[in-house]
Amino acid sequence: MSDMLNIAIAGLGTVGTGTLQLLDRQDGLLAERALQPLRVVAVADLDTGRDRGVDLGKISCFDDALQMVAETDVDVVVELIGGSEGIAREVCEAAIAKGRHVITANKALLAHHGIEIAAQAEKAGVVLAYEAAVVGSVPIIKALREGLAGNRIARITGILNGTCNYILSAMRATGKEFDEVLAEAQSLGYAEADPSFDVDGVDAAHKLALLTAVAYGCIINFDGIYVEGIRHITARDIACAEELGYRIKLLGTTRRLEQGVEQRVHPCLIPTGAPLSHVEGVLNAVMVEGDFVGPAMFEGAGAGSHPTASAVVADMVDIARGVVIPTFGRPVTELEKMSSVPMKNHSGAYYIRLSVTDKPGVIADISAILRDGKISMESMLQHGRADASLGVVTVVMTTHETQESAMIEALAKIGALPVVEEPPCMIRIEQL
Amino acid sequence: MSDMLNIAIAGLGTVGTGTLQLLDRQDGLLAERALQPLRVVAVADLDTGRDRGVDLGKISCFDDALQMVAETDVDVVVELIGGSEGIAREVCEAAIAKGRHVITANKALLAHHGIEIAAQAEKAGVVLAYEAAVVGSVPIIKALREGLAGNRIARITGILNGTCNYILSAMRATGKEFDEVLAEAQSLGYAEADPSFDVDGVDAAHKLALLTAVAYGCIINFDGIYVEGIRHITARDIACAEELGYRIKLLGTTRRLEQGVEQRVHPCLIPTGAPLSHVEGVLNAVMVEGDFVGPAMFEGAGAGSHPTASAVVADMVDIARGVVIPTFGRPVTELEKMSSVPMKNHSGAYYIRLSVTDKPGVIADISAILRDGKISMESMLQHGRADASLGVVTVVMTTHETQESAMIEALAKIGALPVVEEPPCMIRIEQL
Repeated sequence: MSDMLNIAIAGLGTVGTGTLQLLDRQDGLLAERALQPLRVVAVADLDTGRDRGVDLGKISCFDDALQMVAETDVDVVVELIGGSEGIAREVCEAAIAKGRHVITANKALLAHHGIEIAAQAEKAGVVLAYEAAVVGSVPIIKALREGLAGNRIARITGILNGTCNYILSAMRATGKEFDEVLAEAQSLGYAEADPSFDVDGVDAAHKLALLTAVAYGCIINFDGIYVEGIRHITARDIACAEELGYRIKLLGTTRRLEQGVEQRVHPCLIPTGAPLSHVEGVLNAVMVEGDFVGPAMFEGAGAGSHPTASAVVADMVDIARGVVIPTFGRPVTELEKMSSVPMKNHSGAYYIRLSVTDKPGVIADISAILRDGKISMESMLQHGRADASLGVVTVVMTTHETQESAMIEALAKIGALPVVEEPPCMIRIEQL
Repeated sequence: MSDMLNIAIAGLGTVGTGTLQLLDRQDGLLAERALQPLRVVAVADLDTGRDRGVDLGKISCFDDALQMVAETDVDVVVELIGGSEGIAREVCEAAIAKGRHVITANKALLAHHGIEIAAQAEKAGVVLAYEAAVVGSVPIIKALREGLAGNRIARITGILNGTCNYILSAMRATGKEFDEVLAEAQSLGYAEADPSFDVDGVDAAHKLALLTAVAYGCIINFDGIYVEGIRHITARDIACAEELGYRIKLLGTTRRLEQGVEQRVHPCLIPTGAPLSHVEGVLNAVMVEGDFVGPAMFEGAGAGSHPTASAVVADMVDIARGVVIPTFGRPVTELEKMSSVPMKNHSGAYYIRLSVTDKPGVIADISAILRDGKISMESMLQHGRADASLGVVTVVMTTHETQESAMIEALAKIGALPVVEEPPCMIRIEQL
């Protein structure tokens, strides 16, 4: 390596701009810590002319990121374009093919093609780094690959999407419904105009796929993740959960079980005393359970220009220091192919909300179905006649641990009862 | 390096035994992650004969750690003897002199002699690693030196001592007084027979000294730390704090101010909503504030055989992987000597508890002293006549931000008032 780390950055959006700002502001500090200066020599963006508060004077500007990779001589290419296909992928692969180290914040790309790209990087003898892809403000990838290397990880569960956590926190604080809070989140810039990736759990699933691979040293299996978003969560669910001693959070959870790996993203009721229940607003947090450390929690900003830039730059410092660790903790050829435990085999407790006609015998019918499914009820709340004019009441139940397939079957039967007015709402309870 | 990392362990107490157990149980996993087997070839302890549930059959046993260092050919010496002087230091220095990497969990040793020992290690071209010295379960040293390398750290504040946190949590939960809870903690093994190092804040100060050096790249200054323990905290303080919306925690805090570095360990009132307020029992947590990441929190077990062993082994894996980072983030010769901000210059809010004679004019006298000291009161609670027979009432006040020297001066005057029955109790409020 030369006496300077030469860097090309593809994509000057929020994170790219933050990265330029960080490198500019911490110039001297980084040179000391990295034992050599970090110097951006080229950037690519469709609009490099816009004022970003950073002087691009001495930097070669390209509007074509592939052209930048082809024509510049650098040590590291940073991919901050985004998207699981297309130009982002081409930039990474072209950079690796030219023998450049690659840093990316692109969780979608890695969740879908991380193994192929890591294999290319390994073959080329370069680093593929992605700390910025998962909870930018805390070095969780580094913690899993290095700091907790002495542990077998049993479970990781985390609040991996700030938009969902903001919405659920605001729903709880204000009593408002999902749609209204989403609109507010959009106007505050906490949710995208098209919020699907966030509120439907896809973004959290991308991150979970990477955490799983690093934690267990296994091949990424994005398609093996059960994904469910938060659109169906109502203000009433949040209030009932609180009454029962729980908060509702969108969690990404990966567990290593005897039958394989269970990966799932869905809303959960978690006990109000659990550390994750206190993580509010746009913050993210990851709880790692190792066999020697026990539970360890990492909490901080999950997104945003500066926290993500901090992670990108930490990867640069590692590269400058010559730290080389296999992308997912082991050489790609040694990553295990673990079987995926289907959601129907999931075992846990459940929260069920029903809207039922208010007449005698309804609870008896429901209880009988649960009993026949060998599902044991833990608690029940019946809420007054909010919709008294309709003769409809809300019944909320929690169950003891049961198999998901039994629960689904019972709910289908319950939903088919003439007295049940709406499809039942089911939310899983996560013990923490 | 050979095709195997050969290790000698000095000290087979709780952590040494845990380390042997971990290396034994995760044998294959570690060989993969470290890209070579980690093999203990020698141990030293005054009693290597005791059954520790680990087979020492193929390991050379010594009762003299220095003899072990002198007579064995290893890559790494692990010092788990403890103590800031004597044999622990000699073992580290002898190992370095022989060109061995050194891993230690010894915060007392490093807080007092870390710079000298790091200088020796650097000169010898070996690693001095100490992740286990500060909150074993979370890789906070690694996070500061590597994962957050792009940040200027403004403040670190943490719950660094599990014994104190257990005692304060239990006092809050049960309403019992310090002495009673300490005795219970001792019987549960959460406090030592001689608890001074823990409850007087010394252990937390050792850790804080290391965090400060790594965070700012400065010379360790243990003597510059203001240290105050928790013996004077009463059940009434905890109850009053709760009434005012606070919990009491022993925090270690380091701040980088214009005038220098402020390092302090003392009980604090922290807002009930702050993430650190939810860290209960023997858990530790560290909150790091970087200029790019914002606040990031790391939480987990602070002590114990297995979490600490996990940190020791993570350092072994780093050494096996060839990761070499300067001990305190920069070469020793480049560590800054930062001036220490004395506690009298500290600026913050305060909680004051007074026992006063219950008669007219008392509050007027106290208020006048505060006014003359330009100290602005934020709230006041006067509690009923618990000691009515004595005619004594408890008055609790909180102030707005003020300088510590003004507060101390005012309290001396207040304490001298004839109506004030006991020396005033002052606890600092930490805004988080």
